[in-house]
Amino acid sequence: MTTTSPVPAAADAPAQPAVTVTSRPLPVTAVRLDDPFWSPRVEVVRRRTIPFQRRQIDRVGHLRALAGAPDPGDAPPHVFWDSDVAKWIEAASNSLAVTPDARLERDVDEAVEVLARAQHPDGYLNTYFTAAAPGERFTDLRDAHELYCAGHLIEAGVAHHAATGKTSLLDVVRRYADLIGEVFGPGPGQLRGYDGHEEVELALVKLARATGEDRYLRLASYFVDERGREPYFFDAETARRGTDGWFGEHFSGLDHPGRTREYLQAHAPVREQHEAVGHAVRATYLYSAMADLAADTGDGTLLAACRRLWDHLAATRTYVTGGLGSSRVNEGFTRDFDLPAEDAYAETCAAIGLVMWSQRMLTVDRDRRYADTMERALYNAVLAGLSADGEHFFYDNPLASRGGVQRHEWFEVACCPPNIARLLTSLGGYAFAQGRDELVVHLALGAAVRFETSAGPATVDVSTDAPWGGRTQLRVTDSPGGEFTLSLRVPGWAEGGQLTVDGQRFDVADLLGPDGYVSLTRAWQVGAEVVLDLDVAVRRWWADPRVTGEAQHVAVTRGPLVYAAEEVDNGPSLVDLRLDRSAPARVVQVPGLPDVLGVRLSGGRVEHAGAGLYRTEPPRRVPADLLLVPYYAWANRGAGEMRVWLGDSED
Amino acid sequence: MTTTSPVPAAADAPAQPAVTVTSRPLPVTAVRLDDPFWSPRVEVVRRRTIPFQRRQIDRVGHLRALAGAPDPGDAPPHVFWDSDVAKWIEAASNSLAVTPDARLERDVDEAVEVLARAQHPDGYLNTYFTAAAPGERFTDLRDAHELYCAGHLIEAGVAHHAATGKTSLLDVVRRYADLIGEVFGPGPGQLRGYDGHEEVELALVKLARATGEDRYLRLASYFVDERGREPYFFDAETARRGTDGWFGEHFSGLDHPGRTREYLQAHAPVREQHEAVGHAVRATYLYSAMADLAADTGDGTLLAACRRLWDHLAATRTYVTGGLGSSRVNEGFTRDFDLPAEDAYAETCAAIGLVMWSQRMLTVDRDRRYADTMERALYNAVLAGLSADGEHFFYDNPLASRGGVQRHEWFEVACCPPNIARLLTSLGGYAFAQGRDELVVHLALGAAVRFETSAGPATVDVSTDAPWGGRTQLRVTDSPGGEFTLSLRVPGWAEGGQLTVDGQRFDVADLLGPDGYVSLTRAWQVGAEVVLDLDVAVRRWWADPRVTGEAQHVAVTRGPLVYAAEEVDNGPSLVDLRLDRSAPARVVQVPGLPDVLGVRLSGGRVEHAGAGLYRTEPPRRVPADLLLVPYYAWANRGAGEMRVWLGDSED
Repeated sequence: MTTTSPVPAAADAPAQPAVTVTSRPLPVTAVRLDDPFWSPRVEVVRRRTIPFQRRQIDRVGHLRALAGAPDPGDAPPHVFWDSDVAKWIEAASNSLAVTPDARLERDVDEAVEVLARAQHPDGYLNTYFTAAAPGERFTDLRDAHELYCAGHLIEAGVAHHAATGKTSLLDVVRRYADLIGEVFGPGPGQLRGYDGHEEVELALVKLARATGEDRYLRLASYFVDERGREPYFFDAETARRGTDGWFGEHFSGLDHPGRTREYLQAHAPVREQHEAVGHAVRATYLYSAMADLAADTGDGTLLAACRRLWDHLAATRTYVTGGLGSSRVNEGFTRDFDLPAEDAYAETCAAIGLVMWSQRMLTVDRDRRYADTMERALYNAVLAGLSADGEHFFYDNPLASRGGVQRHEWFEVACCPPNIARLLTSLGGYAFAQGRDELVVHLALGAAVRFETSAGPATVDVSTDAPWGGRTQLRVTDSPGGEFTLSLRVPGWAEGGQLTVDGQRFDVADLLGPDGYVSLTRAWQVGAEVVLDLDVAVRRWWADPRVTGEAQHVAVTRGPLVYAAEEVDNGPSLVDLRLDRSAPARVVQVPGLPDVLGVRLSGGRVEHAGAGLYRTEPPRRVPADLLLVPYYAWANRGAGEMRVWLGDSED
Repeated sequence: MTTTSPVPAAADAPAQPAVTVTSRPLPVTAVRLDDPFWSPRVEVVRRRTIPFQRRQIDRVGHLRALAGAPDPGDAPPHVFWDSDVAKWIEAASNSLAVTPDARLERDVDEAVEVLARAQHPDGYLNTYFTAAAPGERFTDLRDAHELYCAGHLIEAGVAHHAATGKTSLLDVVRRYADLIGEVFGPGPGQLRGYDGHEEVELALVKLARATGEDRYLRLASYFVDERGREPYFFDAETARRGTDGWFGEHFSGLDHPGRTREYLQAHAPVREQHEAVGHAVRATYLYSAMADLAADTGDGTLLAACRRLWDHLAATRTYVTGGLGSSRVNEGFTRDFDLPAEDAYAETCAAIGLVMWSQRMLTVDRDRRYADTMERALYNAVLAGLSADGEHFFYDNPLASRGGVQRHEWFEVACCPPNIARLLTSLGGYAFAQGRDELVVHLALGAAVRFETSAGPATVDVSTDAPWGGRTQLRVTDSPGGEFTLSLRVPGWAEGGQLTVDGQRFDVADLLGPDGYVSLTRAWQVGAEVVLDLDVAVRRWWADPRVTGEAQHVAVTRGPLVYAAEEVDNGPSLVDLRLDRSAPARVVQVPGLPDVLGVRLSGGRVEHAGAGLYRTEPPRRVPADLLLVPYYAWANRGAGEMRVWLGDSED
């Protein structure tokens, strides 16, 4: 075994890109959402999901356990609990930032108070290792999610402060982060380890940004740099502890895919990682932190690693829906081009992780492909996780179902619903970014957006008919005078379009920059209007032939939406449908799905002859019309069959 | 929980079929193989596999451990060891029955002597529980394969006696079986359990037949009847032992698929089992014993269960190659129509188990579909397990490979090579059966066959060009006078054919019985000749549409052989091949595979346009010729791609 220095020697490293941060996500308080597509969903989160989250926490007895006064009927503490309460506080804070709610604010304050009282004098804060396993803190980093929970608490503290201005939770998590900084590190007497589930790294970057304290950034860098180095920390940890980890019951011995170094992205130092591997949520959280650190430290070696990992992921291991993770065995990646449709794992949280990573890549590398991916994942792999009523959830998101698959109630899936809640309550930060004298519109999202210019704050009202239409309108409602830039992404899916600036029309192609954005710099006055009108065409997609399961298949998109056939519209045995290659598409209302536009296409249906598992009678094709619905909208009208990839009639 | 009586009350049971045993497999000594296809393979088993088996046993130190005198470098005893030595003795005995070999006979006798000396005074015999875990006998039936090993020892003892007339091993296994009969059973003081891996049941039937002792049949019945009853034996066993079973390290906790009741076919009493579930080898061994018991006890409830299980398996869970087992997680069955090609498990031993069960079904239910299945499995899923040189082995037999898959040396796969060895050295018993004054030819196999008639023994020489041609010739070489019947199966794959009896021609269709056999009863004289000439056509097969992975795909067979495309003949990216539906086939020699006939067919190759994981440019098809080889012959010319199911050009 060898030890290597924390940063590769410059002499050995290839030339690395310079890191230029041209914009940063807008804070949650700067965006007032008003979007016909997203606002109702965010409202469900506010009215239903966040209160439900709170009741769940109460039901299991988390805060009572934390306060040292459990009820007799309470569940035994779980190592994930602190992340549940933290994600709830984060989503609630995001909501409070734009929608005052006295009762919710009181609930949050009470929880923060319990957390503050439960914090140990040295700053330590973890329910499980306080109430259920005292004396064992920081002995099972691989399995027990201890720093993962710390990371979520830190994110909650930062969000709570940003939303309310209160420092009650921020102070608590700073003290905890300070303790973590004392305990972990390469110095004498420190524990040279890191967490099995990445999360604390990106949280510490947020804490550094919120407090201006560089030491949190250095601690995040330490965790990222230390990962995957020899000697392997988790081997030493296991040997030291002498017992199996917290997931000993769950994983099958040391050769289980959930026990490999790849599973934890700890198989190599992060700058030497070339492929997205292992547990998909963990992976995207790590890559998010790497992009954050590239932005905040200017480390081009991290940007280079992020680009390499991104390229590999995009070229070989991403579902057409933006879903990530081909196997439920490791909840993650398998091998290149292994993208089974029916057995897809594509965990909702992994797609959220891809959204998070994409947002961060746009900060260090403005290129619309990151925004295209963010949008694809958001409208498909993420949104499919949520039912039309906002109260049922998919944990995994297969691209085909033979029927019987339905979204679950909350309590059956712990991690994804709160993650959806905190994402939807902070959508503005994904859609809009603040550049120098610049507003960047990454995603079309209806909102009033406040941003800064050298001359002072400006406000732009954005309205859009996305995802159904291609029209996005920006109206300047407040301008400090002076020049500033409005940058709008032109999605890769757009077939063309026009831009109208104060009545003057341009062809989008004439204005499009190499980054895929149109940037307009003017001395914008109040009332000025920019309208982007994109052609939203139905497109057919074929997979790389190495995706063997999708040979002879075609997928359909319209704008950012991936479409799917459901049994309720097309009858059973969807495997028998064939899609014509050149038939014109009609955009239609979908029975039973108000506010959803379907696509009607001509094709065929294969009729089978003969009997038995194998038969010598060939199938015959008859003409048939197909009705496709957005993938995110599937399984809202019963638990019938569904397929994204459909038979190609000409192959 | 409830307890049920060992046999369902007749009043509750539906009417059960009567069991009529019309024929039984011929003993190994009655068939002298002389077949251009099989004889060279059996010769490799004799010259190479059996000696290699012996060296393996010596290498690990099994017999030394058994003798209580291990060498310092010997491996620690494994729970499977006794089955290895038993399968070696069985194969060696089968070989000795027809091919004397003084050295091999001495080797066998020596091993038998070690076994005899190692037998405990009470009859117990097991290396692992004698040398490695004394005092723990019969405490881990679920995992430790103790009665499974006993079963193989019993089969070895029966085979050794049948081949050599010696009782040295038969006496040993009788004493062991007697002990097992004392220990296990429903009586007071007895252990009311059974083994996690079925095998002892069918072995005890063999022992009953070899010795004429009904108590072994009753013991087999007990094990079969007890299986799956409540209270569940393995729960009680685990609780009693208080530790995890032998596979505790291997399986992931109690929710691992290898730990379910279905895995062990112990989820319900066998007469209430409706679907083939769990570990595929275990399943087929159980069903074999059930068919055996139906034959020997006349129990129609077992025959009904066998037929039901067979129908379900044939209709939903069998690969076109005759392979069984869709998942490596449980080495077994998953759900109906889940038959993934590339991820097929299709363990060689499970296909052997299907051959064994088929043979037994033919005993109680003469119907050519059992023989068709036996033949399909034998020529495809079993034979693919063996390399052309006879010295490399597949454990699992996928129906598609993206390359990189090759057969392994023996030592990497423990259980399949000895199972192939004992099957190939006893082929005659699968091909030929003895009826009352009747020889039944289930499979075309070149051999001199001796059978009994009321008037005395008769001999028929069978010659055939199977599997390449459809001609099978029977010549009576010894006849006692008096009438007897020659029954020949007409395979389901035959497109038609003629039968010539002493120069007189018949159309096969005119003579074919409802069971799929032609039966000719005459006073056959020496020199009489029957020639069956079947049309061997190339056939295309389509899968039930519920096998979603094979939609738009077609498989090709010729006679009993399933064909496959290999990269070496067709270039890479076999997923791009398309097969025309009606193009005529040409039978051709295959480069690099002497004695193998390929099939040349016209079709197309898809050329891909565009780049990226998903692209909007459609693929285009160009004409191409395809060369297919028998599936069993794949991976003998490098480790390139392979596919059984090919794109259907008209779907």
